[in-house]
Amino acid sequence: MEREKIKNLPPREIRELIRQGKWNDHTAGLAPGYAQANLAILPQKLAFEFLLFCQRNPKPCPVLEVTEPGDPILRKIAPEADIRTDIPRYRIYKKGKLIAEVENIKKFWRKDLVAFLIGCSYTFESALLQANIPLRHIEDGKNVAVYITNIPCAPAGIFSGPMVVSMRPIPQELVVRAIQVTSRFPATHGAPVHIGDPKKIGISDLKKVDWGDKPRLEKGDIPVFWACGVTPQAVAMKAKPELMITHSAGHMFISDVRDAELTAF
Amino acid sequence: MEREKIKNLPPREIRELIRQGKWNDHTAGLAPGYAQANLAILPQKLAFEFLLFCQRNPKPCPVLEVTEPGDPILRKIAPEADIRTDIPRYRIYKKGKLIAEVENIKKFWRKDLVAFLIGCSYTFESALLQANIPLRHIEDGKNVAVYITNIPCAPAGIFSGPMVVSMRPIPQELVVRAIQVTSRFPATHGAPVHIGDPKKIGISDLKKVDWGDKPRLEKGDIPVFWACGVTPQAVAMKAKPELMITHSAGHMFISDVRDAELTAF
Repeated sequence: MEREKIKNLPPREIRELIRQGKWNDHTAGLAPGYAQANLAILPQKLAFEFLLFCQRNPKPCPVLEVTEPGDPILRKIAPEADIRTDIPRYRIYKKGKLIAEVENIKKFWRKDLVAFLIGCSYTFESALLQANIPLRHIEDGKNVAVYITNIPCAPAGIFSGPMVVSMRPIPQELVVRAIQVTSRFPATHGAPVHIGDPKKIGISDLKKVDWGDKPRLEKGDIPVFWACGVTPQAVAMKAKPELMITHSAGHMFISDVRDAELTAF
Repeated sequence: MEREKIKNLPPREIRELIRQGKWNDHTAGLAPGYAQANLAILPQKLAFEFLLFCQRNPKPCPVLEVTEPGDPILRKIAPEADIRTDIPRYRIYKKGKLIAEVENIKKFWRKDLVAFLIGCSYTFESALLQANIPLRHIEDGKNVAVYITNIPCAPAGIFSGPMVVSMRPIPQELVVRAIQVTSRFPATHGAPVHIGDPKKIGISDLKKVDWGDKPRLEKGDIPVFWACGVTPQAVAMKAKPELMITHSAGHMFISDVRDAELTAF
């Protein structure tokens, strides 16, 4: 199946293809205008501490929905969706170690599992592009550059660690506009956490990414850093929970919520 | 001690007077410019469901801070404060029944208690006044009118129930501005949830308040409704938890956070 053929289908129909095993590739560019989401599934006994971690760190961890324990249905952001089957690819971690990458998690599902859906930067990137702010990694067909910083997250129970950020080079004269545009989307990481000198937040060399692709800065571009949805996964992995299930990088959950419904104002 | 004499002291000094038992009256007008907060304390075993309720209903339940179980210190919004002593008056509920009203909760404190501090409308009222939007109840020295609506909150575990709202009559030509001003404060209930006909949200008669004082509408005023911090208390009371501790109405927690620090943008 080709990306071009399915990309403009409604989210429900794309999820149906994913559910039937007919689409297992990444979700970038699918269902444009609809919000996609990061996934973290944890046992109920860790759910309070993880939700508290998200509450204390809303920029890296903007929660879109939390399911009831054992209930695989996303009642708020996609009432017809089943979190066990509607993501193209999942990763299963036991005590922080990757043990499997699978196309559905039916056989791993348990009555005590709670799914956390967390806002994704695709939403604000699309708003930036609509505002004529260029995004170098999209121009180049690459992944956004992602770094571990020295900014500590506010800990909660077993969950602690540094904030992970994504960096987009923005032309100096558009930096103010980029802040305004992304400020409207607190549910998808919101305004930047840092502008300018990467060393100030513990990044010694922009060429050395921790995830994603090496960035390209044009003359006059300023590095602008946004809190990244990798943060809660990195933090949860470090806590080595007995079981944790996430989406595979880039293989997000496609919700029924339009990007424009997520604006703060 | 007179309100006028202490009102402009820093929050820390007012809390010290409260802690020493020298101030046990309501906190309206104290430490202007600093955010005050509603309090709900629950046992840890209900904390996940209550936090989830707040996450699902951010307009009535904007969480400013959640303490670690058993830790009475507010590490984020007032690092020197002790939640057991720094509120002028508390109410103790057992299985939803008021059993005591006290000036500190030292003898009720337990190692499994979690405190939720929830944003309070004083912050956005002060922003409305600064924008020259008149507030009738303040002009009259009364309490704001509060009503139970027919808007259901999104339930979470044992917590469910209708949204409670406060109503402020706003001159028609200032309604748009009032929405803009309060939209900047999602951490203290944010934008209105309803404008105009009270019947649309299940309020049959504005004169019959559920809490607070009967409102005064001037000619040309439109009733504007904001989600109210009474909601989480009403919902928790209905769930009849084994133990719940709240502030007494109007006797709020005074934080070190300035109102202006709580704006979304």
